[in-house]
Amino acid sequence: MKTTLEPIDFYFDFLSMYGYFASLRIEALAQRHGRKVRWHSMLLGVSVMKTMGLKPLLETPLKGDYVIHDTARYARRHGLKLKRQVTDPMMDPRAASRAFYWVRKHRAGQEAEFARAAFDSYWRQGADLSSAEQVATLGPAMGIDAAVFLEGIESDEARSDLRDAVAKSLEKGVFGSPTFIVDTEHFWGSDRLELLDEWLTAGGW
Amino acid sequence: MKTTLEPIDFYFDFLSMYGYFASLRIEALAQRHGRKVRWHSMLLGVSVMKTMGLKPLLETPLKGDYVIHDTARYARRHGLKLKRQVTDPMMDPRAASRAFYWVRKHRAGQEAEFARAAFDSYWRQGADLSSAEQVATLGPAMGIDAAVFLEGIESDEARSDLRDAVAKSLEKGVFGSPTFIVDTEHFWGSDRLELLDEWLTAGGW
Repeated sequence: MKTTLEPIDFYFDFLSMYGYFASLRIEALAQRHGRKVRWHSMLLGVSVMKTMGLKPLLETPLKGDYVIHDTARYARRHGLKLKRQVTDPMMDPRAASRAFYWVRKHRAGQEAEFARAAFDSYWRQGADLSSAEQVATLGPAMGIDAAVFLEGIESDEARSDLRDAVAKSLEKGVFGSPTFIVDTEHFWGSDRLELLDEWLTAGGW
Repeated sequence: MKTTLEPIDFYFDFLSMYGYFASLRIEALAQRHGRKVRWHSMLLGVSVMKTMGLKPLLETPLKGDYVIHDTARYARRHGLKLKRQVTDPMMDPRAASRAFYWVRKHRAGQEAEFARAAFDSYWRQGADLSSAEQVATLGPAMGIDAAVFLEGIESDEARSDLRDAVAKSLEKGVFGSPTFIVDTEHFWGSDRLELLDEWLTAGGW
């Protein structure tokens, strides 16, 4: 009897550089273990700031400096050349996040492709994705008409789907980007990919 | 010509379970790379709470639950049986920390031995180390008379040495436990030991 393994749930915020880093590696990791990846866009502004009552990383004394250094080191180690710096003003990620949920509903199966395109555009190419118009320009390369996409991103349905998705991520206890859930096991942080890998190999411990 | 490598600076708070985890592995790691370890006791109450303005981990919604799960998983993976739970009331770590600096000054070379004994007593054996009297009971096994040790722990000198050490750790930008500094490179978190290991092997990147 062939059993089907549950997908790995991957939660990220488009404005999280650590989420971007993880997005580049999670599919290959999952594939090695015969798993698929289910992508979920979440909002740190809701989990970290509103629910946890914390400040954004870069506004946290001492930790902010560390994060600047740590992300640059990660990029060097993995040979990534990014036009956007972690210290650049952060975009409002809600348009990209609504777009993600619109794609998931109306172009099911393409949502990971959209997420990768948005991450790449924002972090590697340094594009501004803070408005629905700008996000909609990613549509044509995926076979989505930009005007149709724009209407979708601005729709009440996408707003409501994003709200529901964020509420669900909080119910599951997801607070950081990236977070991975394997079966019911949570792993938080791009530096936990190795641990997740070991966990999948060992079947837990 | 033989060059001498700088020691690895290892910062920890006795009340940090992640600091305890790191204390069990840092010496072997350093040794593999021909380095010594310079141990430094610091106080999260000063760095995290006062300077960064954050709440203790376990009082942070969502993150608290994750930490409980993550530390238990780490302990299982590394075969550690601990009498103390991360959810137990936290001790005031200042007596143990003053003792550390007293040993470093008056029994130079034994401070790492003291730190390991205090960590073991608090975390593995579940002992209470919140008073100077209790900390002083760790002296005799190290050849330090308990009464002499108690006087040292309570001395103005030890209080002043601890204040200076904590101020210096903040000047260096150390905010979390554990933190490792190799040459001028900072690594934060027990889950960064692998990265530190790679860094030492590669000579940076």
